[in-house]
Formats: sequence, structure tokens, C-alpha cells
Amino acid sequence: MVAVYPGSFDPITYGHLDIITRASKFVDTLVVAVLNNSAKSPMFSVEERIVMLKKTCADLGLKNIKFTDFSGLLIDFAKEISANVIIRGLRAVTDFEYEFQMALTNRSLNSSVETLFISTSTQYLYLSSSVVKEVAILGGDISFMVPAIVGDEIKKKLEKIKREA
Amino acid sequence: MVAVYPGSFDPITYGHLDIITRASKFVDTLVVAVLNNSAKSPMFSVEERIVMLKKTCADLGLKNIKFTDFSGLLIDFAKEISANVIIRGLRAVTDFEYEFQMALTNRSLNSSVETLFISTSTQYLYLSSSVVKEVAILGGDISFMVPAIVGDEIKKKLEKIKREA
Amino acid sequence: MVAVYPGSFDPITYGHLDIITRASKFVDTLVVAVLNNSAKSPMFSVEERIVMLKKTCADLGLKNIKFTDFSGLLIDFAKEISANVIIRGLRAVTDFEYEFQMALTNRSLNSSVETLFISTSTQYLYLSSSVVKEVAILGGDISFMVPAIVGDEIKKKLEKIKREA
Amino acid sequence: MVAVYPGSFDPITYGHLDIITRASKFVDTLVVAVLNNSAKSPMFSVEERIVMLKKTCADLGLKNIKFTDFSGLLIDFAKEISANVIIRGLRAVTDFEYEFQMALTNRSLNSSVETLFISTSTQYLYLSSSVVKEVAILGGDISFMVPAIVGDEIKKKLEKIKREA
Amino acid sequence: MVAVYPGSFDPITYGHLDIITRASKFVDTLVVAVLNNSAKSPMFSVEERIVMLKKTCADLGLKNIKFTDFSGLLIDFAKEISANVIIRGLRAVTDFEYEFQMALTNRSLNSSVETLFISTSTQYLYLSSSVVKEVAILGGDISFMVPAIVGDEIKKKLEKIKREA
Amino acid sequence: MVAVYPGSFDPITYGHLDIITRASKFVDTLVVAVLNNSAKSPMFSVEERIVMLKKTCADLGLKNIKFTDFSGLLIDFAKEISANVIIRGLRAVTDFEYEFQMALTNRSLNSSVETLFISTSTQYLYLSSSVVKEVAILGGDISFMVPAIVGDEIKKKLEKIKREA
Repeated sequence: MVAVYPGSFDPITYGHLDIITRASKFVDTLVVAVLNNSAKSPMFSVEERIVMLKKTCADLGLKNIKFTDFSGLLIDFAKEISANVIIRGLRAVTDFEYEFQMALTNRSLNSSVETLFISTSTQYLYLSSSVVKEVAILGGDISFMVPAIVGDEIKKKLEKIKREA
Repeated sequence: MVAVYPGSFDPITYGHLDIITRASKFVDTLVVAVLNNSAKSPMFSVEERIVMLKKTCADLGLKNIKFTDFSGLLIDFAKEISANVIIRGLRAVTDFEYEFQMALTNRSLNSSVETLFISTSTQYLYLSSSVVKEVAILGGDISFMVPAIVGDEIKKKLEKIKREA
Repeated sequence: MVAVYPGSFDPITYGHLDIITRASKFVDTLVVAVLNNSAKSPMFSVEERIVMLKKTCADLGLKNIKFTDFSGLLIDFAKEISANVIIRGLRAVTDFEYEFQMALTNRSLNSSVETLFISTSTQYLYLSSSVVKEVAILGGDISFMVPAIVGDEIKKKLEKIKREA
Repeated sequence: MVAVYPGSFDPITYGHLDIITRASKFVDTLVVAVLNNSAKSPMFSVEERIVMLKKTCADLGLKNIKFTDFSGLLIDFAKEISANVIIRGLRAVTDFEYEFQMALTNRSLNSSVETLFISTSTQYLYLSSSVVKEVAILGGDISFMVPAIVGDEIKKKLEKIKREA
Repeated sequence: MVAVYPGSFDPITYGHLDIITRASKFVDTLVVAVLNNSAKSPMFSVEERIVMLKKTCADLGLKNIKFTDFSGLLIDFAKEISANVIIRGLRAVTDFEYEFQMALTNRSLNSSVETLFISTSTQYLYLSSSVVKEVAILGGDISFMVPAIVGDEIKKKLEKIKREA
Repeated sequence: MVAVYPGSFDPITYGHLDIITRASKFVDTLVVAVLNNSAKSPMFSVEERIVMLKKTCADLGLKNIKFTDFSGLLIDFAKEISANVIIRGLRAVTDFEYEFQMALTNRSLNSSVETLFISTSTQYLYLSSSVVKEVAILGGDISFMVPAIVGDEIKKKLEKIKREA
């Protein structure tokens, strides 16, 4: 089973790492795919995000994970890399409705790829990349939300933004 | 990957068959497991339910499905049959909340088995075994809810109940 | 437009009267239909419930309301009385999911009858026949939940139950 | 009964057509009203949207539908055209909460106009104008989401945007 | 501020202890009130539940907690003990809707008592007395759900039930 | 107990006043704190919002309310003013999910401050500052949504915007 785990990962959080660790146990290959969405203004470039993903996943000692970016329709990308499932983490009801809509749309576009939802671990239920960035910008502690190397990169990025402002 | 798809299946509906068909594509073996719950008063015995499951699944031409009953904790049963994932179909928000609670409880009991949620096909979103039985008892048409052989068994059962009343 | 407003009405509350008043304004005929469900153990008989419905609706001065009971499938009853719509009041998300399921089931049984949902007035959002009975049994004030004649009937019923206990 | 079915319809989807078809059966006149919202940057102008609405509805053979645009408060527009009900399609819980809030606000502004909710057909539950545009922009198949003439207009619009970029 | 924390506590879980600990920090006196509901068939008598509550709370070293049972309307009981707030823990959306309805009903019965909701800690989000009992009956490990003395009492109770069966 | 009631209050509505009135009854001091969020483009400046808060609350005759603005993390501000609880009003499920996430994030940042949720009164369930502004911009009546002096300020602001456009 080849699975794709798509997302913005801007930046990766302990919540994402939790899903990656658990998904890696039941799939043969897990392709972590960073969405290259030109419309949004992210904190980190796609390349920076992939570097952070690789570094933080290296510590997990998992052998079956690949990293890449993608643009266009997720379902077309999944087909292209011969993935038969899409992995998505669920946190709450609002998540669920949106994810459900995406899964049904994707299935109607290509019914050969299945979306599998995993529930996020309870300690990461409140966690999202947006929350991490918001807390970091306001000077709060994010050490229990992201690995140290991600926290360092956020710090550098915020200092750079401040210097340039 | 060995997956267990647990449920009451009292009786099996097109919604269940949809989940079984789709799950069978990405797992190696799918164990459809009928919960033997002495507390409830089902319409069909566990044996009758397994017979209907086998008959209706036979038409799908799938090679990797097994049928069994189980009692006790689902997570213990999963371990016993060396399943590494549990498959659950999701229909709506109310489903989601209950299923989420079960998944988190099961993970806290044994974190080596993962619960995977699949969204039910849109045409079966309203469908449940309870709805089937309720409509059948009130004399409504259930031919688009369950396979013909299940419809026949429900009819026989209702006639038997009427005779004995 | 002939509309059926089905329910248990055990007993009627100000929330039901609110839906009846508002529905009566845009339909030609509104048939308030009391579900004759032998499986449940109601506080009031179907006959008693219809009497209370008639009395409390009489004060509204509405000309286009009829009262009846029904058993069997709602959709068959709607067809029988040539109703083209079913009216349902919505209070909250849990309501919505259940009502949605019923509406989709009914439509799949007979697509010529449409279910129309109306949002309950905010002051009655918390109100249900169950809440009324629970509060009354525990000795609380229900005068702002049901019309006086319904409150009197509940009082009599509870005194009768106490005498017979 | 004169009903107004308001929306952005940017562009019309099979989901909207489903609501229009079904609503037209129980109302005398259905006014499909395109919101003229200067604040948003739509894909199609209000005029283009009305043209597509007229063309796609013409195929339905319905006699009692009118098309117009409106600006300002919906409830004032409803009053102006002597509509006594507003029709809204419901897809999911998130929809429901927002729609409920709008219905309660509108009722507090003018209680003589009632909002009626219809559940969207299951096969269109995932469908919205936003999903259509997103899939079209990413090159996916939208032929099962919108009528052919709408698909053609989207194609032309996207080619024009590409040429001008 | 005198607060009442009502519940069935059949039996107390780590989730309840979490709410008690946190509520005790911002109230002057916290009255933990066990609902004496003759209609349900509990695992433990009200007296047994109060003994377990006292024992498990004793270890928390909190000085401002009292224990009692109550029957009748919660709002009348709150008034009787001069409580000005009711404390309720929230876990999920289904909880929220029910709790919201109760809070609005209680406020309409007596607006001088306010209901305050606290979010349950993430690690106890899946936890309820029902889950504890269900897992225990099926032979699962409940040591991370309830304090040891509660686990022992459940074990004794289940052995007694088995002997008497 | 010192409580902070944070918000944008752009502008204050009867819904906010309802929460302030009720919270003031069970806390010793209530600090109404206006979020100074430079990222958003509000209708009123922080200073204007505080003036309106003070004026409208003056009529309530409450002695224990203070007004201030804040920026940065709410939890840091709460600590700074020695508040031990945060007060939040809940209206609906969408609210609940967002508020729950914020409460869990804040607790993980500083577990000594508790978030208390109060249910909004039913008559204000539909009300938000956004709805007020939207209705006012479209020329609707907002006299039952905000106090007269707030309505006057909105009117002046809209006239000023029109003149400058």
C-alpha cells in the first residue's frame, strides 16, 4: 500500500509527526506531500518545509517515508505516484465536515483512491500550524507544539521579518 | 495489512457492502467481525447475520474477505487475529463523535492497532440497519437499501414474528 | 399546498404552537398528525393529545389547520392525504442530523413529497415535550413552556399516577 | 406562495438545479435571486450568472421560475417582490449553523417572511460553486458537477484569465 | 462563590477528578452533588459513590469540597444550598448540545444561578463512566481511567454480579 | 475571583452586555479587555470601542467592571492583571469548536488560568458584531441588536465612510 499524506506543513507540528508515525506502521510507503499553493502567503517556502519535514522525521527512525511537493489536483498526484490511499488526520467536527467534502469530491473524481482518516492523538487535538504561528508571533512558548529545530526556524524567520519591517 | 471491520450487521445493508468493497481494495485481508452482544435483542442471530454477509459478499467476487463473530473487547479481538487496523465507516457528525471516542479509547487500550475511517458513499449516507428494519416493519420498500436475499430474510422474519404474536 | 406536520405532541408545547402558527401562514392546509406509536409509553393517549392540540390551536384563530393521528410510514400517510410537503421544526445540530436522515430516507421512498425545515423561535430552542415532562415530574414551573390547559392536564395526570402508585 | 431562492450562483451547479427543481413543485412562483455583492471578486458577472441560470433552467421545462439580481437586505428584497418564503438548501452541519443564524436574523428583521430549508440530494452533498471552480482551475473534470454550458463558460473564463496573466 | 458540580459519578473517573481539581481553584466552596435518580439502574448506590468520591478527592488535598446527594430539580437544589453557579465539564459537540439545552432550561427556571462550562483536559476527552464500565465488563484495563480504589470497587462489584448470576 | 472577558467588541452588542451582566454577578472583578489587533481593519478604534463599552455598561449600574485594551497573548495578559479565569460566551457548535481549541491552547500555555464558558441568552443567539455591521451597512434596523448610543455611532461612522468614498 502506497499512501500519500498531503498538507501545507507550514510548519510541521507534533500533530503531523503523530500522524506520520502512526500511518507509517500500516502502509508500505508513506509519501508526505507538501502542497505548492501559490495563492497563499506561507511563512516557509516549500523547500524550507521539506527540509524541516526530513530533519524531524529522521529522528523517528522510519524507513518507509518519502517527501515531495505537489501542485494541481491531489487525486491526479496520487494517481501519478501510484498511491492507492490518501491519509488525513482528523481533530474535530469542523475538520470532519471539510475533510468529508474533500474525500467525497476526490472519490467522485477518481474512485480508485480511498481517503483514510485517522484521529489525532488527544494531546495534539488543539494543535495546528496556524496556532503555532499565532502563539510564536505573540511571543508565547511553542516548545511543546513543534520540535526544537522547527522552533528555531520560526524564531529566525520572525527575527528576519522584524528586521525587514 | 490485516484489517477488522466490526459491526452488528443486523442485517447487512448496501452501506456496509460499500465499505467492505472499498476496504478490500487496500487491505490484504479484511475480517468482517459480527459483534456477539448478548445485551441487545437483535432481529437476526449472529449465525444468520454471518450467512447473509457471506452470501451478499460472494457476489462481489472478492477473494480477501473472512467472516467471524467476536465478543469481548474489539481491541483484544484485533490483537488475537493479528489485525493491525480497524475499519469504520463514517456517515455524519453524530457518527463521528461516537466513533472518535471509540477510536481514542481503543488506542489508549492498545496503541498498536490503528482505527481507519472511510466516508460512506453519498447515496448510502442516510442508511443504517435500524432504518432498514423500521421501514420494513412499517411496510415500506427496502429494495434499494439491502440486497434481495436480505430483503427476503427480513420479510420471513417479520412474518414469523406476526404469526407468533 | 397541503402540508403535514407530524409529531408525538406528548404533550404539545409552545415550541410546537410556534411552528404551527408560522407554517399556517404559507400553506393552504396544515394537517397536524399525531404519531400513533404503540412501542412507546406516552404520558397522554393519542386522543388526549389531539384534544389538547385542538384546544390550544383554537385560540390561535387559524382556519386552515386539521388534526388527525396516523400510523405506519409517514410518507405513505402524506400521500394518502395528498400532502405535498412535510413540515419539521429544527432546534439544534443533533436535531438536524436526525431530521436530515429522515428527510433523505423519506425522499428515497417517495420523491414527490418534500420535507421543509423551519427554525424554531429562539425562545423555544431549549424546549421539548421531554423537558416539559421531566420538569413537571420534578415539581418545577412549566407555565412558560406549555399553555395553561396543557399544564392542567399534566398536573392531573401526575396526580393520577401518584394515587395509583 | 411566492418564494425567493437567493444565492451567489457563481456559477450555478447541479446542486442548485436540484433545489430549484424541487422547490418549483410546491411554490407558485420561484424567484431565483442573484446577490449583487460588490465586495467579493466573483468569476462571473451578475449578468453572466443570470444568463447561465436561465439557460440551464430552460431545460427543466419549469414554467414558474423568474430570475433577477438583488442588493441590500434579503428580507427587504423579499418584501419588495411580495415573497412570503425564502428557500435555502442545506448540505451539512456547518451550513446549518450559518443558515440558522441568517434565518433567525431575518426573522427578527421581518417576521412575516419565513425561511424554509430543503436538504440537498445526497449525490450533491459535496458540491458547491467553490469546489467547482477549484477543481476546474486545477484541471479536473467538472462535467458531473455542472451542466455542459456552464462547464464551457468556466473553460472560456479560465482561458481568458490565462491569456491576460 | 458557592458552586455545585452535579453528576451521576457512577463511578467517578479521572475526568471528573480533573474538573473537581480545576474548579476548586476558582470557587470558594465546591459541592459535588450525586444525582439520586431512582429511574436508572446504576452500578453503585449513591452512598457507595459518595464514599468513592470522598476517598479519591481526599488525595487531592483540597479543603473546599463538600459531598452530598440530591434529587428533584438541580436548580432548586442549587438554590437550597445557596450555590450561585453550576459547574459542568464539556467533552465534545454532542455533550455541548445537551448541556446547552440543560443550561437554558435551568436559566429559564431560575436566572439567578449561572451554568459555567469547563473544557475537559485532552487526555480525558474520551472518558466517561459508561466507557469505564463497558471496558471493565469486557475485561479490559481501566487503570488509566479511574483511581486504583475505584478500580478495586468495580472489580468487586463485577465479581459479585458474576457469583449471583 | 478576577475574570477577564476578552473580545473585539467592534462594536459591543446586546449579546456582549448579556454576558457582562451575568458574569458580573459571580466574579469579584470583571475586566472587559478589548483586543488590539493591528492585523484586522475594524469599524471602530480601540479607544472608541472602550468609550462605547463604558457608556453602555454604566447604565447597568454594575460596580465591579473595569475596561482596558490588550495586545499579545491573552494568557499573558490574564497573568499580568492577576486574573484567574477567562470568560467566554458560547452561541453555537461552530463557536464551541473554536473556543474549545483556544481554551485548550491557553491551558497548555498556562494551566493556572481557567476558561469558563457561559451560554448566551436565547434571544441573542444569532447576534454578533459582524451581523450588526452587515445589517447596518445594508440599511436594516439594528435597534434591537445594540443600545441606542452604539446605533448612533455606527450611523455616524457609516455616513463618514460614505462622505469619504
